[in-house]
Amino acid sequence: MQAAERAAWLRLILLPGVGPRTARHLLATFGLPDAIFDAGLSTLLRTVPEPLARLLLQPPSEEVRSAIEATEQWLAAAPDHAFITLADANYPQTLLTTADPPPVLFAVGRVELLNRPSLAIVGSRNATRQGNENAHGFARALAQAGVTIVSGLALGIDASAHSGALAADSDASTVAVLGTGVDVIYPASNRRLTLDVRKRGVVISEFALRTPAITHNFPRRNRIIAGMTRGVLVVEAALRSGSLITARLAADSGRDVFAVPGSIHSPLSKGCHRLIRDGAKLVESAQDVLEELGLTGRPRADADSPPPEPAAHADLLQLVGHDPIDLERLVKESGREPGELVGALLELELTQYVERLPGNRYQRLR
Amino acid sequence: MQAAERAAWLRLILLPGVGPRTARHLLATFGLPDAIFDAGLSTLLRTVPEPLARLLLQPPSEEVRSAIEATEQWLAAAPDHAFITLADANYPQTLLTTADPPPVLFAVGRVELLNRPSLAIVGSRNATRQGNENAHGFARALAQAGVTIVSGLALGIDASAHSGALAADSDASTVAVLGTGVDVIYPASNRRLTLDVRKRGVVISEFALRTPAITHNFPRRNRIIAGMTRGVLVVEAALRSGSLITARLAADSGRDVFAVPGSIHSPLSKGCHRLIRDGAKLVESAQDVLEELGLTGRPRADADSPPPEPAAHADLLQLVGHDPIDLERLVKESGREPGELVGALLELELTQYVERLPGNRYQRLR
Repeated sequence: MQAAERAAWLRLILLPGVGPRTARHLLATFGLPDAIFDAGLSTLLRTVPEPLARLLLQPPSEEVRSAIEATEQWLAAAPDHAFITLADANYPQTLLTTADPPPVLFAVGRVELLNRPSLAIVGSRNATRQGNENAHGFARALAQAGVTIVSGLALGIDASAHSGALAADSDASTVAVLGTGVDVIYPASNRRLTLDVRKRGVVISEFALRTPAITHNFPRRNRIIAGMTRGVLVVEAALRSGSLITARLAADSGRDVFAVPGSIHSPLSKGCHRLIRDGAKLVESAQDVLEELGLTGRPRADADSPPPEPAAHADLLQLVGHDPIDLERLVKESGREPGELVGALLELELTQYVERLPGNRYQRLR
Repeated sequence: MQAAERAAWLRLILLPGVGPRTARHLLATFGLPDAIFDAGLSTLLRTVPEPLARLLLQPPSEEVRSAIEATEQWLAAAPDHAFITLADANYPQTLLTTADPPPVLFAVGRVELLNRPSLAIVGSRNATRQGNENAHGFARALAQAGVTIVSGLALGIDASAHSGALAADSDASTVAVLGTGVDVIYPASNRRLTLDVRKRGVVISEFALRTPAITHNFPRRNRIIAGMTRGVLVVEAALRSGSLITARLAADSGRDVFAVPGSIHSPLSKGCHRLIRDGAKLVESAQDVLEELGLTGRPRADADSPPPEPAAHADLLQLVGHDPIDLERLVKESGREPGELVGALLELELTQYVERLPGNRYQRLR
């Protein structure tokens, strides 16, 4: 991309009063940003109200020109600094299917990660030790299985998720979506982790360089986390929590929502339990997530130890067979009492010898 | 009931090779047990295979006669010893709607509890301290709210549920369903609790007096726990566990299934998590259960104070009357919205002004 074209994109997103929505509206009408700034008043007035049209006609402010210059210097400073627009192939394509994709993204690191199969892992900043360990464990195992882990580089669950992904022996790695400029380190205690993610993963932001930590930018950042992934896993979250908003945004965009359950006495599990009640999938392991995402060929198995041979029910197993058979017929053919039979069938089901089908029918699995 | 009639019931259920299913089949054909034993061979052959017909024609064995005599002595020994048949008003009416109701029940204690709104609380015998505390807490709060707590008087969650219910300041109390005879104390360490439940709640069993603890009788017992309640709450359970069978039986009978989540690292939460994934309702508190059962907002029914006059629903009470009336007709005649009507009926049910009968019919009690 030419510097002039980048300057037009920056002018557009830095214009006071122009958010992603207005920017996309203008782009949809005029095509590239250059065309917006080249248009005359009467043309602009067909698309936007007069105050905005007049604003678009003014030359860029001192502040905007300085931001453009700083961006050019930053891009020239390192080969892994990138400026990605909606029109760019590196732009996360899944984000385009959401209601509010940002017009541009700044990135530091491996931009090719932005279009990998990915999962967001989010949660409380004040996570428990166990919560942090869980986030680390899920992220590591999922990255190991080839899933890029997306999070917000906040303290607590976010940080544990990023570092878990980086601990995997895999190039799936991790994407950090910031609520500040990509050149800002926030919070300061995440300095080392931020440098690590820049180097081995990628850090992105829709906010201009040098944008400091401003409270209301963080919820906006969450829509990117939710929108660029195939699903969101919430590890620990209080009832009123940004993570629940991220999960809600994900559900609204048709993404899967996963939640890790915990003690009913832990305030940081209440958010997860709320999500599960509202339809999120309860997950106990990375394997559960992979299966739900359809990213594993393995049948669902609680494979800590192979199930024991169902010696006690071998006759019943014989009777069930590999074609569906209904309960009534099993009662008749087995001669067992229905209560006892259902118990035996459930045992066989739990040890994955039979599967229960709709309509009280059963089928042998192995 | 006359001793002769009881003797016939006992002969029927004690006959080797006659389970509840065969017994009900015979009862459905002949009416009362007397008629079965009075029938001739040719009549019996129209209903059962020849070996069984010949068995029915033989006089009761020494063993059966001794069991009949022991039962009569036991019934005479205390006013709260009871022998309840399918035809008895004290028989749990909800159990009649299940696939496999036991023909008779032995009971010690307050038999009127068998037809109160009730919830089963079940779980692991090797529960954690927190699991036991949770079972106790849920049971106490639910009993306090007027829900009779049903469980199996096993160690662990069962025992905690019974003692929690007894700790409530309420006459909702608790029902223990045994896998042994009601006169057997098993396990021995539950001796004090068993005596307490006999005195302040009720202990029931489908098994004859003196029946010892036999492994395969316990799963059969579970179908009664599931069948006589409005729902089953599983507090802690391993993946392969009798509690999961109870929950499955409850779901199959259209009862609600509730499960308490826990740490993903606790083997005793895995059963609960499996249930939640399969559609059980995740609950964090007794309040959650009451809301799911539609039992909130009702006044507390205490032993000492009579239930409050249902002033708000006097018109409805009038309409229900002492003969069964179905919901549809009540909707029509009351002119109330169905949702509101069901709420009002529940209130009347919980304050024991009306009784809910199978098939969405209601009847006034007083």
